[in-house]
Amino acid sequence: MRIRELMKLYAQRRIRPQEVIEECFRKIEETKHLGAFISLDYDGAMRTAQMLEKSFTKELPPLYGVPIAVKDLIDVAGLRTTAGSLFFKDNVAKEDAFVIQQLKKAGAIIVGKTNLHEIALGVTNNNPHFGPCRNPHDPARISGGSSGGSAVSVATNAVLAALGTDTGGSIRIPSALCGVVGLKPTYGRVSVRGVMPLSWHLDHVGPIANCVEDAWIVLKSISRYNAQDPFSQKAPLREPDFEKFPKGIRILKVTGNFVSKADERILKIMDEACEVLEQLGALIEEKPLEWLKDAAAANGLITQTEAAAFHRERLKQHPEMFSDDVRQRLMEGASTSGVDYAQARKIQTMTKHNFKQLFSQYDLLMLPTVPIVAPPIEGENAVEMARRLTRFTAEFNISHLPAISIPFGRVDGLPVGVQFVTKWWREDLLVQVAHAFERSTAHS
Amino acid sequence: MRIRELMKLYAQRRIRPQEVIEECFRKIEETKHLGAFISLDYDGAMRTAQMLEKSFTKELPPLYGVPIAVKDLIDVAGLRTTAGSLFFKDNVAKEDAFVIQQLKKAGAIIVGKTNLHEIALGVTNNNPHFGPCRNPHDPARISGGSSGGSAVSVATNAVLAALGTDTGGSIRIPSALCGVVGLKPTYGRVSVRGVMPLSWHLDHVGPIANCVEDAWIVLKSISRYNAQDPFSQKAPLREPDFEKFPKGIRILKVTGNFVSKADERILKIMDEACEVLEQLGALIEEKPLEWLKDAAAANGLITQTEAAAFHRERLKQHPEMFSDDVRQRLMEGASTSGVDYAQARKIQTMTKHNFKQLFSQYDLLMLPTVPIVAPPIEGENAVEMARRLTRFTAEFNISHLPAISIPFGRVDGLPVGVQFVTKWWREDLLVQVAHAFERSTAHS
Repeated sequence: MRIRELMKLYAQRRIRPQEVIEECFRKIEETKHLGAFISLDYDGAMRTAQMLEKSFTKELPPLYGVPIAVKDLIDVAGLRTTAGSLFFKDNVAKEDAFVIQQLKKAGAIIVGKTNLHEIALGVTNNNPHFGPCRNPHDPARISGGSSGGSAVSVATNAVLAALGTDTGGSIRIPSALCGVVGLKPTYGRVSVRGVMPLSWHLDHVGPIANCVEDAWIVLKSISRYNAQDPFSQKAPLREPDFEKFPKGIRILKVTGNFVSKADERILKIMDEACEVLEQLGALIEEKPLEWLKDAAAANGLITQTEAAAFHRERLKQHPEMFSDDVRQRLMEGASTSGVDYAQARKIQTMTKHNFKQLFSQYDLLMLPTVPIVAPPIEGENAVEMARRLTRFTAEFNISHLPAISIPFGRVDGLPVGVQFVTKWWREDLLVQVAHAFERSTAHS
Repeated sequence: MRIRELMKLYAQRRIRPQEVIEECFRKIEETKHLGAFISLDYDGAMRTAQMLEKSFTKELPPLYGVPIAVKDLIDVAGLRTTAGSLFFKDNVAKEDAFVIQQLKKAGAIIVGKTNLHEIALGVTNNNPHFGPCRNPHDPARISGGSSGGSAVSVATNAVLAALGTDTGGSIRIPSALCGVVGLKPTYGRVSVRGVMPLSWHLDHVGPIANCVEDAWIVLKSISRYNAQDPFSQKAPLREPDFEKFPKGIRILKVTGNFVSKADERILKIMDEACEVLEQLGALIEEKPLEWLKDAAAANGLITQTEAAAFHRERLKQHPEMFSDDVRQRLMEGASTSGVDYAQARKIQTMTKHNFKQLFSQYDLLMLPTVPIVAPPIEGENAVEMARRLTRFTAEFNISHLPAISIPFGRVDGLPVGVQFVTKWWREDLLVQVAHAFERSTAHS
């Protein structure tokens, strides 16, 4: 079910929020073995549902009675924020994060907190403390991460949308591997107030949903400037025209060394995606972006260093409480030199500059979200996987550009994600094209 | 002489560029003992003067025949860029820096390259390789730095204006100590292409002149977006109304721990400056900004680390070629941890955020440029002095805000600088107020 469909049912009073919540928890129970949730809040969700029913009016708020799952890194008052870590297993949030306040104002119902890669520093979501999060398309495979539980909760239709965070690809990667839509907005578009930081200068909050329009509806509800948040930016959010494809739009298909290491079958799917876009009226060019070669590594270095700064005391006092891969990366971060971090920030400046030039020639970039399909949980190396799976996503964290992953095609029966990227603050363009693409490919 | 006066003489054909250059070099010769210059270009300047005379038209470009000195960190084609360092003593620039191209287009005549603190990493300008730069008000005292030679060349009336660079106060500090006007524009306003970096994320280029209007004329000539420079930003430069004081302007006089360590006599001069501004029609409030307490130190840490990144190989191969204070600071920079650098960048983000809030309540800040008057050269400790003299200036490097220092009052017969700061991109407001202040105080 799409948000728009549910809203129509509500408007016609053909369904009540309580029924939606009951159905939601039934699906959560049914797919429990996938390990999507760390905490559930049936009672709270039902209370909200009842309240919403009582307050029913003709003018429903945009997320009236929409069940939403929240990555367990984002504070929801009264629920734990574990960050998937032993350090925070009893950390009950006193206040709602700014985004949660926005969701609640829009009428959403928070049903629970989703599993993630420990402290969000990793992409396999094989969490040793709260259990692995499994791929709904093959439970022996990873869901991807770090917002894996959020992607799975959407992919299993337990919720209509979920919130994730993305520092190197953590919204887009699990979305691609689980076959859902993940949208990382422009840096600063969505406030991170009340979200546990992984890397201050790279963290983004964004929606995961079953279709582009739903992701957009959630984004619209949570995009609000927050004067209390030093990372929040004021910028208008334009309304996309979902009825129209922007004919003549210039799309750059990124090729060359940067992309060629992806699974060939995924590259073939990209070719097919290009054909669809051309039929829609896009102008497609191909070009390698060799200047991007160091950006993903620089993004990883900044992430690890800032994570080590935030978790400094915990790493010093109780390193054993972190799992091996996370501890290894935090220790790398702690021993990174200032000079290397400074160089990485310089790469960031150069990368932004190069993108600025590039977006005078093109409106949109496209490339795979992830170079491979979901690998097996068994035998995965989380540190190596972090480098591999973020290879096509981290560039858009360091550059702060908005990016979306939408499912298209399959390899070995597993979902593949196509990624679109556009210039700063133009999420409207991103979703407009992605929506048209989605509609004409009628993804499974 | 002011630029406007010289332009009038030119327009009336009462003076020729060659005569101005002759007079300029006469003054340079006369004040040679102050050590303001590292290289002179009499022949080049005379050639340009002759060319300008031949190309005389009614519509003179804004800096027609204006002699300008350039900090020896900025490339002028055919001249050495020593950066005040032994490593670069024979480093002849092949191309003009972007700002030099702009100056030349505007008709300026570059007369020479000015002395600076070695690699711009310091503020005493006691350069062991090219000699100390001395204060024209007392040659036994420092000129301040790192753009000391530029300030001295203006203070001695050898040139009408000079270019400096400012990473922690290096335009404003020598301007204050030598009794001239120094303007650090918003970060990104003036391109750093062709300027040897000290710290990529904090370096600013700006003018030093004998009056606010001259500083403005030079700023206007060099403010141009440079698409080839990743640090250059596109932003309109508004025209100030020099005829009018913006009555009702809200000025915050910064007080509290942050400022109270300044020489009491300098603080008294600030009080007098406030009276002048109130008479002009400004609304003045006082407030401590305790959240600024770590910003200057963070600026120093970022500077040292990025300097160590840029000079990494030189520091490794030939540490002995750096002077003691510079080597000490570079080694501190090289051993700074990534975590500490990341924290300093976080302080930067927070500081910018706090200023953003502050500038919704105030239009302008004022505080002393430097807490003391120029100290003696003999016995100075350059590392300690860097911390002390940048105490009131570095905040506006890390926050990228535009700031101006203008001379007002004297202590022990030595000049004192009043500093005005305003919001990003509003240099027009800065110079409008500074100009009115200057006019009503008729500084010596």
